[in-house]
Amino acid sequence: MNKVVAISRQYGSAGRTIGVHLAGKLGISCYDSVLLDKIAEKTGFDKKYIQESGEYTSSGSWMLSALAGRDYNGHSIQDEIWNVQREVITELAEKESCIIVGRNADYILEGKADILSVFIHANEESRVERVVNEYKEIQQKEDPRRKIRQMDKRRRAYCQLYTDVQWGDARFYDVCLDSSKFGIDKCVDILAELYEMM
Amino acid sequence: MNKVVAISRQYGSAGRTIGVHLAGKLGISCYDSVLLDKIAEKTGFDKKYIQESGEYTSSGSWMLSALAGRDYNGHSIQDEIWNVQREVITELAEKESCIIVGRNADYILEGKADILSVFIHANEESRVERVVNEYKEIQQKEDPRRKIRQMDKRRRAYCQLYTDVQWGDARFYDVCLDSSKFGIDKCVDILAELYEMM
Repeated sequence: MNKVVAISRQYGSAGRTIGVHLAGKLGISCYDSVLLDKIAEKTGFDKKYIQESGEYTSSGSWMLSALAGRDYNGHSIQDEIWNVQREVITELAEKESCIIVGRNADYILEGKADILSVFIHANEESRVERVVNEYKEIQQKEDPRRKIRQMDKRRRAYCQLYTDVQWGDARFYDVCLDSSKFGIDKCVDILAELYEMM
Repeated sequence: MNKVVAISRQYGSAGRTIGVHLAGKLGISCYDSVLLDKIAEKTGFDKKYIQESGEYTSSGSWMLSALAGRDYNGHSIQDEIWNVQREVITELAEKESCIIVGRNADYILEGKADILSVFIHANEESRVERVVNEYKEIQQKEDPRRKIRQMDKRRRAYCQLYTDVQWGDARFYDVCLDSSKFGIDKCVDILAELYEMM
């Protein structure tokens, strides 16, 4: 079985950056936007739409659309994307050891890969700083604290809708780290150490 | 400020053992039953009673007694023990860098010490194994799974009653580790590494 580091993270906690740096250190790939490309290709949906229909959502009532608009089999477009996402992530994990950021890869890959499941969080101050200055995703007059709360809420709800994992509950992850306490480099070091021993 | 490793843990997750080994590795003290002695001395209550009136409780309805039996100031015996516990833990942290297992030391010491807050958990299988074969606290015919659930429930409720920490929620700890995934030695290594960088 291949080894997969599945990183879940709070919005603004540098989880994605940690994934990318870890991949560089371990010499394996970190999948994030490539996942979107593959899902877009398989579903025929626009990449941006897929981005917004999962835990990356930054606008729109995806939860509503997930529950409404079902076809005669009771499936929504969200469900279809979830199914394709599962296929794409499973194929990746069968092909190579890698890092997958977000998209509930830990849940999807249970029993199919040797998983290191990770949750990255950080204090509000550093998340605000990161979201405002690095992500540059905050609109004028938008309150970054409100944005952070909303994004976490959506990721939690999405996770709850499609998995048995309680988002952010330590018991569901092998390791959880506060990136604002330890810094990105130390988190990468710790995860590399845990990966190597798997 | 002294450095304090505050270890919260699921029942049967080897959190206490990790604390003791970590203390040996770092050359500092690990406080656990010594805390009980000090609290017993200060309150005049029996050590066993104190043990049962906190997160170590293994029998009795401490939650009920915490909420009932209040004096005319609205204080219960539980509250008194909590206050003395706070004093004892604060004094320890002012005196020396150390490790404290349980008793919500992370919450008590906020702003009073340089804290590494840790949550140790493990899968049910290894917890049952540990509780049955190492703790030897299971009575005949008692279901260890039930005991584990009860103990966690009590620790969670106690934490909720006296602190703002959501027990087991990754956001409230600097680092959370699954001891059944990594083993006791690796957990000790990781924590020592994080302690050294503080």
